[in-house]
Amino acid sequence: MSIRIGIMGYGNLGRGIECAIKQNDDLELAAVFTRRDPSTVSILTEGVSVCSVNDVENWKGKIDVMILCGGSATDLPEQTPKFAKLFNVVDSFDTHARIPEHFANVDAAAKEGGNIGIISVGWDPGMFSLNRMYANAILPDGKDYTFWGKGVSQGHSDAIRRIEGVKNAKQYTIPVDSALEAVRAGKNPELTTREKHTRECFVVLEEGADAAKVEEEIKTMPNYFADYDTTVHFISEEELLRDHSGIPHGGFVIRTGKTGWNGENNHVIEYSLKLDSNPEFTSSVIVAYARAAYKLSQEGQSGCKTVFDIAPAYLSAKDGAELRKNLL
Amino acid sequence: MSIRIGIMGYGNLGRGIECAIKQNDDLELAAVFTRRDPSTVSILTEGVSVCSVNDVENWKGKIDVMILCGGSATDLPEQTPKFAKLFNVVDSFDTHARIPEHFANVDAAAKEGGNIGIISVGWDPGMFSLNRMYANAILPDGKDYTFWGKGVSQGHSDAIRRIEGVKNAKQYTIPVDSALEAVRAGKNPELTTREKHTRECFVVLEEGADAAKVEEEIKTMPNYFADYDTTVHFISEEELLRDHSGIPHGGFVIRTGKTGWNGENNHVIEYSLKLDSNPEFTSSVIVAYARAAYKLSQEGQSGCKTVFDIAPAYLSAKDGAELRKNLL
Repeated sequence: MSIRIGIMGYGNLGRGIECAIKQNDDLELAAVFTRRDPSTVSILTEGVSVCSVNDVENWKGKIDVMILCGGSATDLPEQTPKFAKLFNVVDSFDTHARIPEHFANVDAAAKEGGNIGIISVGWDPGMFSLNRMYANAILPDGKDYTFWGKGVSQGHSDAIRRIEGVKNAKQYTIPVDSALEAVRAGKNPELTTREKHTRECFVVLEEGADAAKVEEEIKTMPNYFADYDTTVHFISEEELLRDHSGIPHGGFVIRTGKTGWNGENNHVIEYSLKLDSNPEFTSSVIVAYARAAYKLSQEGQSGCKTVFDIAPAYLSAKDGAELRKNLL
Repeated sequence: MSIRIGIMGYGNLGRGIECAIKQNDDLELAAVFTRRDPSTVSILTEGVSVCSVNDVENWKGKIDVMILCGGSATDLPEQTPKFAKLFNVVDSFDTHARIPEHFANVDAAAKEGGNIGIISVGWDPGMFSLNRMYANAILPDGKDYTFWGKGVSQGHSDAIRRIEGVKNAKQYTIPVDSALEAVRAGKNPELTTREKHTRECFVVLEEGADAAKVEEEIKTMPNYFADYDTTVHFISEEELLRDHSGIPHGGFVIRTGKTGWNGENNHVIEYSLKLDSNPEFTSSVIVAYARAAYKLSQEGQSGCKTVFDIAPAYLSAKDGAELRKNLL
């Protein structure tokens, strides 16, 4: 019997979850839930219902794991505790500073419902966090570095779009090669914000807008661009759609550290991702943790978990003997 | 109170364990055990006893985790089950083909003794296995690649030393850059043994030995060198000691895979290690898992575990709240 998955919210992430479920024979899509009028939402999987979020309680007992695809700002702080009372849930809550509070809320709700809630799943937080944690446990005397990109930052693209005279825009975050190389060479550099990443913007102007003024406004925008070396390219809407419609991302987690009686030996641990589609890769991680949520629940466990609390074997459809034989 | 660690066997690995314990405030070295006459073995840590392996039973209850530093060929298949009856144990058993059998033996013994036995810990098997497993769970439609090096292969260095006329030798395994690049570019190449790695040998000849004959014998040696492009350099003993006395190693685990409704997006997950000292890094991984063995045992668990079965948080000296706050 397959593990029955529900998808709450059908944007880029929800669609990514749907695609990831198709790749895993032990999982099946049970239903998609939306706040919109369900008749206006068409999904890819044949024969699966799109339901109103208002009907979700009717699905208790018919869904093994509900995957929450809302945003971290307002959706998930409310939704994850709420639905953890009804279902095993997985979310991708990514507001790092509010994780302790979110954990506590989900833990209480999941325990009340006798369910598992896994929060902050994806690649950062998620796989990057895991790699930071493993590397810290292995090399206690060391230094951590995280670089992001090359990839599209949705928040920065949105910030450019809000500037007067801008019709459309896409922003790429790019790690600085020389900084990456200095880290890999074990030089333990202290890097400023400007030294770690550059920002590259592709901007489509409204008819008659002042390019110089827009460029100046982007480059001096506090928090978003002022602390970075930023390049602005003005292109046509056709070029933007043709060359910049993907959502690639990725990055690097590196820890350098010393071992030996007098710290005489140096080591570099590096984990990197190069992703054509940020939401689809995030979805692929979430779906593996949905499998884990189901298995943990079957064992009678409940409460909130993060990637730190879950043994790797729970993510796999293969059993322990097969994993030991083929992957150890 | 610190976790009391015993070291069984004091070679490169045992000494690495001793150094790693020094870096972790929650661990302390309780004793070192040797098959040699203990009076002939001097260790780095002041005030700690070197004991005969024959006295190990007297230490039951005085050691929380015994780390077994013997070889995989003959020592560990016998030692790990034997000592798992008395102590929580961790080993670095690395004969991949015999892992299922070793797991079964250690599992039975550890359960009989009410202890935890963690086997095959290090970087391969170990961290490389973990990364293969995570990447396989995340990208089910993909392809795995493992490259080793640049690093010293002890087995290949030994094989050269057994050739008549060779006084000393060191062999480096080197991944082929163009193969690595093709994998990273998502080209999914099918790579032969020869296409993945080259072998570089530094050889010191005995007085009057025939260099051409030695070189030919190395390059045609079945299993070890015949399937590789091998380079042989003849150097003086002084040069060997000056330039090749370290034990560096490392490597790359890469999985490339597709996502999307029609597999239209490509992803690359890469984990790599660059290690000045193979035994010291292996030791650092083992020591983190020794901490995990202790915690699992304190929870009342018993039996054999591998890196796949242990939640990451068990490796850390930090508690869950601190990990979530700082590393998630």
